[in-house]
Amino acid sequence: MSQPSRDRLVELRRAFHRRPEPAWREFWTTARIVEELRSLDVDEIRVGPEVLDADERIAVPDDAERDRWFQRALDAGADPEILDRLRGGFTGAMATVEGGDGPTIGLRVDIDGLPREESTDDEHAPAREGFRSEHEGAMHACGHDAHATIGLGVLEAVADSDFEGTLKVFFQPAEEAIGGGKPMAESGLLDDVDYLLAVHVGLDHPTGEVVAGIEGFLAVHQFRADFSGEPAHAGARPSEGRNAVQAMAAAVQNLYAIPRHEDGKTRINAGKVGGGSATNVVPEEAHIEGEVRGETTALMEYMRDRARSVLDGAAAMHECDVEVTPQGEAPGAESDDAVVDVVEAVAGLTDGVDSVVRTDDLGGSEDATYLMRRVQENGGKAAYVGIGTDHPGGHHTATFDVDEESLVVGVETLTETVRALARERP
Amino acid sequence: MSQPSRDRLVELRRAFHRRPEPAWREFWTTARIVEELRSLDVDEIRVGPEVLDADERIAVPDDAERDRWFQRALDAGADPEILDRLRGGFTGAMATVEGGDGPTIGLRVDIDGLPREESTDDEHAPAREGFRSEHEGAMHACGHDAHATIGLGVLEAVADSDFEGTLKVFFQPAEEAIGGGKPMAESGLLDDVDYLLAVHVGLDHPTGEVVAGIEGFLAVHQFRADFSGEPAHAGARPSEGRNAVQAMAAAVQNLYAIPRHEDGKTRINAGKVGGGSATNVVPEEAHIEGEVRGETTALMEYMRDRARSVLDGAAAMHECDVEVTPQGEAPGAESDDAVVDVVEAVAGLTDGVDSVVRTDDLGGSEDATYLMRRVQENGGKAAYVGIGTDHPGGHHTATFDVDEESLVVGVETLTETVRALARERP
Amino acid sequence: MSQPSRDRLVELRRAFHRRPEPAWREFWTTARIVEELRSLDVDEIRVGPEVLDADERIAVPDDAERDRWFQRALDAGADPEILDRLRGGFTGAMATVEGGDGPTIGLRVDIDGLPREESTDDEHAPAREGFRSEHEGAMHACGHDAHATIGLGVLEAVADSDFEGTLKVFFQPAEEAIGGGKPMAESGLLDDVDYLLAVHVGLDHPTGEVVAGIEGFLAVHQFRADFSGEPAHAGARPSEGRNAVQAMAAAVQNLYAIPRHEDGKTRINAGKVGGGSATNVVPEEAHIEGEVRGETTALMEYMRDRARSVLDGAAAMHECDVEVTPQGEAPGAESDDAVVDVVEAVAGLTDGVDSVVRTDDLGGSEDATYLMRRVQENGGKAAYVGIGTDHPGGHHTATFDVDEESLVVGVETLTETVRALARERP
Amino acid sequence: MSQPSRDRLVELRRAFHRRPEPAWREFWTTARIVEELRSLDVDEIRVGPEVLDADERIAVPDDAERDRWFQRALDAGADPEILDRLRGGFTGAMATVEGGDGPTIGLRVDIDGLPREESTDDEHAPAREGFRSEHEGAMHACGHDAHATIGLGVLEAVADSDFEGTLKVFFQPAEEAIGGGKPMAESGLLDDVDYLLAVHVGLDHPTGEVVAGIEGFLAVHQFRADFSGEPAHAGARPSEGRNAVQAMAAAVQNLYAIPRHEDGKTRINAGKVGGGSATNVVPEEAHIEGEVRGETTALMEYMRDRARSVLDGAAAMHECDVEVTPQGEAPGAESDDAVVDVVEAVAGLTDGVDSVVRTDDLGGSEDATYLMRRVQENGGKAAYVGIGTDHPGGHHTATFDVDEESLVVGVETLTETVRALARERP
Repeated sequence: MSQPSRDRLVELRRAFHRRPEPAWREFWTTARIVEELRSLDVDEIRVGPEVLDADERIAVPDDAERDRWFQRALDAGADPEILDRLRGGFTGAMATVEGGDGPTIGLRVDIDGLPREESTDDEHAPAREGFRSEHEGAMHACGHDAHATIGLGVLEAVADSDFEGTLKVFFQPAEEAIGGGKPMAESGLLDDVDYLLAVHVGLDHPTGEVVAGIEGFLAVHQFRADFSGEPAHAGARPSEGRNAVQAMAAAVQNLYAIPRHEDGKTRINAGKVGGGSATNVVPEEAHIEGEVRGETTALMEYMRDRARSVLDGAAAMHECDVEVTPQGEAPGAESDDAVVDVVEAVAGLTDGVDSVVRTDDLGGSEDATYLMRRVQENGGKAAYVGIGTDHPGGHHTATFDVDEESLVVGVETLTETVRALARERP
Repeated sequence: MSQPSRDRLVELRRAFHRRPEPAWREFWTTARIVEELRSLDVDEIRVGPEVLDADERIAVPDDAERDRWFQRALDAGADPEILDRLRGGFTGAMATVEGGDGPTIGLRVDIDGLPREESTDDEHAPAREGFRSEHEGAMHACGHDAHATIGLGVLEAVADSDFEGTLKVFFQPAEEAIGGGKPMAESGLLDDVDYLLAVHVGLDHPTGEVVAGIEGFLAVHQFRADFSGEPAHAGARPSEGRNAVQAMAAAVQNLYAIPRHEDGKTRINAGKVGGGSATNVVPEEAHIEGEVRGETTALMEYMRDRARSVLDGAAAMHECDVEVTPQGEAPGAESDDAVVDVVEAVAGLTDGVDSVVRTDDLGGSEDATYLMRRVQENGGKAAYVGIGTDHPGGHHTATFDVDEESLVVGVETLTETVRALARERP
Repeated sequence: MSQPSRDRLVELRRAFHRRPEPAWREFWTTARIVEELRSLDVDEIRVGPEVLDADERIAVPDDAERDRWFQRALDAGADPEILDRLRGGFTGAMATVEGGDGPTIGLRVDIDGLPREESTDDEHAPAREGFRSEHEGAMHACGHDAHATIGLGVLEAVADSDFEGTLKVFFQPAEEAIGGGKPMAESGLLDDVDYLLAVHVGLDHPTGEVVAGIEGFLAVHQFRADFSGEPAHAGARPSEGRNAVQAMAAAVQNLYAIPRHEDGKTRINAGKVGGGSATNVVPEEAHIEGEVRGETTALMEYMRDRARSVLDGAAAMHECDVEVTPQGEAPGAESDDAVVDVVEAVAGLTDGVDSVVRTDDLGGSEDATYLMRRVQENGGKAAYVGIGTDHPGGHHTATFDVDEESLVVGVETLTETVRALARERP
Repeated sequence: MSQPSRDRLVELRRAFHRRPEPAWREFWTTARIVEELRSLDVDEIRVGPEVLDADERIAVPDDAERDRWFQRALDAGADPEILDRLRGGFTGAMATVEGGDGPTIGLRVDIDGLPREESTDDEHAPAREGFRSEHEGAMHACGHDAHATIGLGVLEAVADSDFEGTLKVFFQPAEEAIGGGKPMAESGLLDDVDYLLAVHVGLDHPTGEVVAGIEGFLAVHQFRADFSGEPAHAGARPSEGRNAVQAMAAAVQNLYAIPRHEDGKTRINAGKVGGGSATNVVPEEAHIEGEVRGETTALMEYMRDRARSVLDGAAAMHECDVEVTPQGEAPGAESDDAVVDVVEAVAGLTDGVDSVVRTDDLGGSEDATYLMRRVQENGGKAAYVGIGTDHPGGHHTATFDVDEESLVVGVETLTETVRALARERP
């Protein structure tokens, strides 16, 4: 068996890093993945609508926004034939390697970027070494460039090895919007998976450390609240306004003040807000893009329901209306000991791994849980694996970066885990 | 004609000052007034229920509170027979001097104290000279001790003079609660009044200054909002609480933030708030005693309606209930030029008056407006007269005090005005 | 004397309406004005830096923004030679007609659009009749397209008449940002003006009504507050964030709750706010673009100082920093009776005027006050004239429009007023 | 060995229930305990200053308040000689039974009531059966009446038994104010204790259930924040006020909104608030009595520090001052397995115990942790034992009550645990 070289992995990762595409806009990324897949010894490639339940997509941007990114992908040289199959924002792909009789093993990697600016600081390696984001306002700030790379690397390595079983690699779109996990889980493609691995780099674990089974996924619910009032000239007719920004501000203050819950962790964030049009007009509209989380689905729902009361009450206080639109949502999930055992054993024998942690809390949310639950409901088993990487900035910040050494560690650990699982008989 | 001496006025005022009684608790004060009236040459004395429309009283304290003040008045030596007629909080009085054929002139003075602590500072004359409030938590901080004194002084002086007409002096209770004006206005006793004078000392005018006709009364509406939620142990069960203090705090912030109105002055105050029972219990109840005002009744109503939206929305945000109980309310009113002319002319001739201001804005509210409007609706005329007095602290503050020299000025100005009005033929 | 035809005025107004340019971006507008001026019998034309004190400009957009609008003007066919003189955002112009010996009369019109979307509704005439804004996100929603047109119309009419005096028409940029009035006032060009007229259409007055002297300008101060905190993952590290959106929301709630002032009108508006980057990141930045106003400069300063306390305290509450940047500011001003008299008399004789109102309150702010005060300080006199126009939507709203009949009324009323003033001898 | 009868325990408990005395006011309660102790075969009795480190008391009420409760105790027939030793609010007691050579075992019970009204509902047994609180505004709503009874019961039973060791029962005052634990811990009297038991009834465990070792004590910090501003007449001079109620309300909203912490449980409560003096006066003062908690001391300190920022910032927003006074504080603590083992074993054999739970989370705070840590620091061991009791209302609510059957269970379980521990050799 041969594994793709470090240079090849670095080259791939930097290519992805240069072209971060947020949720449902991963046109160039998907096309590039498919082009790579075609160069490998892969048995089946599916893209876009073939890997998603179209009815379950959420947080899909509007036509104009999708067209803008589609065109950008085209301009950047993506294969028009592939792009054409992604129209409407049906991004993502899946590839299969058939290795003969044996269990079916899934590997899920996510591929989307984040809608945030990347640092231009010279301390930031992508800026210094010339592979900073070429899409202003977008950035791979959570390592999904590394994930896509690892997915391709594992496919290549497994395809080149003696492997008895079936490997399906899921290149999932729209994780950051919690939008891609559910439609992919409900595509039917996971129904024959015996073992599912999901992977994430970093998470405050250093290069050389592997977490065999990450736990503590918070159930999450994202929403958008649109407040609408009545505009008025702020100097001449203040009483005629119904001030949507006041309503929004009252909501923000009281959302964070939802009572803590004795049964476990809860979270609330009004992560992006805005409102109003000009200093001298009483604001007629305002909005909150926010999220709630809970250690369990019940705790998430407690927060969601309380948040609703706050939003409605805040609007009423200022005689405004509010429309609350659910965005992404993801349940919790647990890694199975049977798979964690294998990851732990394999990682302990892998070059470059100097520390194996059996389990650690994520503290965040992930829509990989949809895929894990789907597999588990069908009698399969799953684990969420952490591949440590030294990252200078925190996840989702402007200076996030991955130590490229960890690409090699990730590919090797997961390749060997896939092969070891293939030797298990469920 | 003879006017009561300065010493007598000072003695009366200090007696009242020592025993401030808030709204509908003026038992001792009323009894003392009646005792004084009996020593004068007065034709008719009415007390309590005889001077009020019982159905119109508002903000009447509960039995326990009334009993406490009743007993305190009894203990302080008030005449039990008089007190007995005031049972139930029917405080206040009216006295009539019949001077033969001529117009009927009313003089309205208010007699209640405020529920606030008086300063113990030596700079504060009542503290230094030993006539500070003997009722902890209550104080004559708005000069109604002077008003009661002036009412008695004018009665005495007019009764001793050649006076052709009828003088009715109204000793009105519960002005500070905006509770006594309406029931007294609707008692029927004002229906034959041709000219009504109301009086206030101070208002930032110095001793020696008289304002012939005060204007700019703000219409006012007072309310009490009671928020009720659900208690819970703040450590063990925070999620089970519905926090009335959070609701109240949200309301306070947003009440003050009701949009200003382009048509004129508006006011809002959450003057007294409270809630909760112990640091470790999620508060199940909270309340606001507040008020709104407007330059016109319409503006007051704008504020009242918006406040209602805020209160309801704030409760809803925290899944609490709120009950809003209207307390006092008073309309606007205007002084009539015909009466202002007389006051202005008389004041210009009065000893001790060195400055006559024809008119000035009150900027506050007064339920004398009920009496003024009643008289005006029946074809009579009214004016609200200001008697300047040097006051070290502002109205309603712990160091408010009146310059007793102004008692003499007030009695003389109003006595001569009453006599001059009697010479008018409406 | 001949006046420009209704058709010509309508054509001009619609041309301006199609290309609204916000403050300091009026490249196409200025160039078009200059081209029109060149076709008239005008004695002097000054543009850009020649009509502004460069040091006094405020709220000037950054290079990229200016370049964008500059290029757009170029693309739309504006004369490159004129544009070149406006580089750096030195927009605006002034033209002079010398009519022989006589007083110098100024007419100030403002020319900028607003940064807001225009309605696409068929009820909205510009949409229906095809002259809706071609600049997405910008709109002539306050009638400055009509003002520019009236300025040109009056110039043409006066130039063609027998007129003894000097007319200077000031085409002022950046009124909406309260940014152009001061630099134009301090250009020195107003120092010889004997009579200044400023003009505004609409203001809730119907077509056919003229207000001879508008009063009640509120002093205004605009500001931008930038809150900065610390980002953190909202699920995994909430405690490490310092939440700029919470600080902003606390500020909004408490800004509107700044106590009303007994001395007169005050205003506050947080007209445009925003913050945060993604739902799952604790917001590290947020901002408020707001304004305060007062009936007097002192009242405006009271609001400004209180607002500063609120902004600082709100940031401190959430361990954030706040930077407050003053934007535009304008004082109050009063119309002079001498000029108002003339406008009133002229308007009464003008065709199409069926109602003359001597004076009315603006209730808003205007940086024409800088020009008016400059003239008055030099011994001249000024009036701010209202030309009624039926406008379906309110000022600054998406459906604002002017009744083009009022263009004729405006040009005629002001032309005759200019000529009448020329006959006065100051 | 004999145990006190059920009737005697019920009688004692009802006597205590009738006379609830809040923190540092337990004059009657302490005197009654001492009288009972004198009737038992007890070797040493210490009261008041002899059981407390006087310098460590916190949240002690002022002289007037202490005198009022002292007098009430005297009026209710408490022994004046004992009361005299408690002057200054040095309440509480300790009694020792010497049973010969053996370990020293401590039992800590707390004895204070809560400052809240008791239900008068007929469903509430104390109301129905005539032993409701005789102190209006105070109530045994947390079962400390049962604790004091159990302390006496265990003393009596152990004294009557063959017992080799020393038993010290600590009757601790001021637990609810988190004020008595620390001074008693630092009295020196715990320094020779080998095993310490603390006890609490209820906590949502039914009669017949025993929790061998309660865990999950939250570290707690209580505070009082006093906001001071400037009063002003709300109608006439609103701008001159600096509104302490607005500051308080802003603080309340933002205190609850302190970010959750990823390291564990945090709590915040503004349990009791108030402010202002009258509806028409801008409030010059307001206050919050609140608390923060954390799963660890570090988490409590995080909340305390953030709360301080909020309080300071809120005051600054409204140009007010705030003084923050720490009230009680208690650390966390853990039960030792060695003692929990014994309790678990004994409980399993005790009549009336039908369910033994080894451990459960408190979710609240307790200053028993001071005593437990003191013993543990000296090499001893400790456990916090829960005695289930059916309680109709939650702890700290108006309808809390204990099932008196649990008194018998508590005395028997703890007596046998004390005797079993005496047989251990540390």
